[in-house]
Amino acid sequence: MSTIAFTKGHGTGNDFVIISDPDGELELRDEQVAVLCDRHFGIGADGLLRVVRAAAIDEGAEAVVSGVEWFMDYRNADGSKAEMCGNGTRVFARYLSDTGLASLNGGLRIGTRAGVKTLTRSERGYEVDLGAFAIEADDTLVRAKGLPVARPGVGIDVGNPHVVVAVASDAELEALDLTYQPVLDPAPRHGANVEFVVPADPLVQEGVGAIRLRVFERGVGETLSCGTGVAAAALAVRHWAGAAAPDVWTVDTPGGTLGVRVAGGHVFLSGPASLVFTGEVALA
Amino acid sequence: MSTIAFTKGHGTGNDFVIISDPDGELELRDEQVAVLCDRHFGIGADGLLRVVRAAAIDEGAEAVVSGVEWFMDYRNADGSKAEMCGNGTRVFARYLSDTGLASLNGGLRIGTRAGVKTLTRSERGYEVDLGAFAIEADDTLVRAKGLPVARPGVGIDVGNPHVVVAVASDAELEALDLTYQPVLDPAPRHGANVEFVVPADPLVQEGVGAIRLRVFERGVGETLSCGTGVAAAALAVRHWAGAAAPDVWTVDTPGGTLGVRVAGGHVFLSGPASLVFTGEVALA
Repeated sequence: MSTIAFTKGHGTGNDFVIISDPDGELELRDEQVAVLCDRHFGIGADGLLRVVRAAAIDEGAEAVVSGVEWFMDYRNADGSKAEMCGNGTRVFARYLSDTGLASLNGGLRIGTRAGVKTLTRSERGYEVDLGAFAIEADDTLVRAKGLPVARPGVGIDVGNPHVVVAVASDAELEALDLTYQPVLDPAPRHGANVEFVVPADPLVQEGVGAIRLRVFERGVGETLSCGTGVAAAALAVRHWAGAAAPDVWTVDTPGGTLGVRVAGGHVFLSGPASLVFTGEVALA
Repeated sequence: MSTIAFTKGHGTGNDFVIISDPDGELELRDEQVAVLCDRHFGIGADGLLRVVRAAAIDEGAEAVVSGVEWFMDYRNADGSKAEMCGNGTRVFARYLSDTGLASLNGGLRIGTRAGVKTLTRSERGYEVDLGAFAIEADDTLVRAKGLPVARPGVGIDVGNPHVVVAVASDAELEALDLTYQPVLDPAPRHGANVEFVVPADPLVQEGVGAIRLRVFERGVGETLSCGTGVAAAALAVRHWAGAAAPDVWTVDTPGGTLGVRVAGGHVFLSGPASLVFTGEVALA
């Protein structure tokens, strides 16, 4: 049993155990990650970010990480590997910056399993370029506990799949019981995160669109904030709003406020990132 | 903004931030405790244990702590002060023992707002004498979501109030939806924790009774394990079983297994206590 150092951080309440392993010496089994992320028996987090030099990783990911120094090895709370995590990239960038491992000046490129992502400083804290996105042509019908009728949702792919559905009011959003998984028809092959969105009234003020949302993450349940879901939700409402829709959005989540921006066919997500505490834990 | 050291521990998943403050120099406002106990924005815990010398406390508790060296200043996750916490006493004792601040040899007496409690080592780890108990004469009717019919429960006082109700089977226990607060009739004046219990079949083996339970804690919701609730549940089933009932019980909770023992008119709770990690956090 060895003891390892860690840092705990979050972006709008989406929280992570961060472990520095520059030379890739730490092999974490799924069960070890699951214990570390357990909120009662371990440290507690939505996921784990291992900070490892791109040169030291070994999962055939050389292609996606060429030319970058740091790789974000993101693991879900159950230990499974995940491609990307929007809020996680900001926390990862803040960790690299605060510890002096890397600088954000001129943009910080980090490797992920979904390719290289670029982080910059922004008014809200940190901004990540999530890359290109796709909007599905056909609607998906969404049923959820507390939603009075089934409503059509739009499929949005921002590296991972989302279905975004508009609800009628703040009251309807609050009445949703997301302890139950929403039902999608047709069911996406690999599932999808589901975002329930209320547009602000008016939708656009001084060129900036505003929405409010709650998210159900596949395999997780309701979360305080899902970075890619925030981007997907803004993209969906922008799509519905048509030609005159703005490119800049603010998105209120239960965990805090994020910004979404569309430019050059890419979608950018911005928001805060905090490092809360450091510690040492025994690795079983 | 100052930085403080802490330890995180748990007893059967009931988890605590432990802060050593021997000389009583740390005044924690309710909001500070609430942030420290927040599972996404802070460290995350069911409550906070401040480790302070009995001589250094100042809340008119001199009477209850005379002759003891250490006082367990227990705070709920919202920052409010609580009288006692059964699982917390074991974690508190383990912390004192592991750090060398006190010894369990011959019994360790600690001050709490509910009086002096004595801790000893036991086969399960640590045992606390919860003191005398009271069983109410009149039943309380319990309604809960997922429970097919209202069922009579018995009120048990072990320093704090509980209502214990037997359910028909493991399946009925699992079907309970404790995201909703159970309804008690008549409603206890200060509320009560509610324990839903399934007796083992056979109830008694080799002189030891066995039950399984889930707990709804007032003001909290369902928890993995409530120490005093475990004691109350064993006392209730022992009461129902009548004259031939055993004095020794094992109680399975979602967070682990605990032991309950009745001797000399007192009820004793035993179980494990773990210290999981140490850390440093900035106090806002």
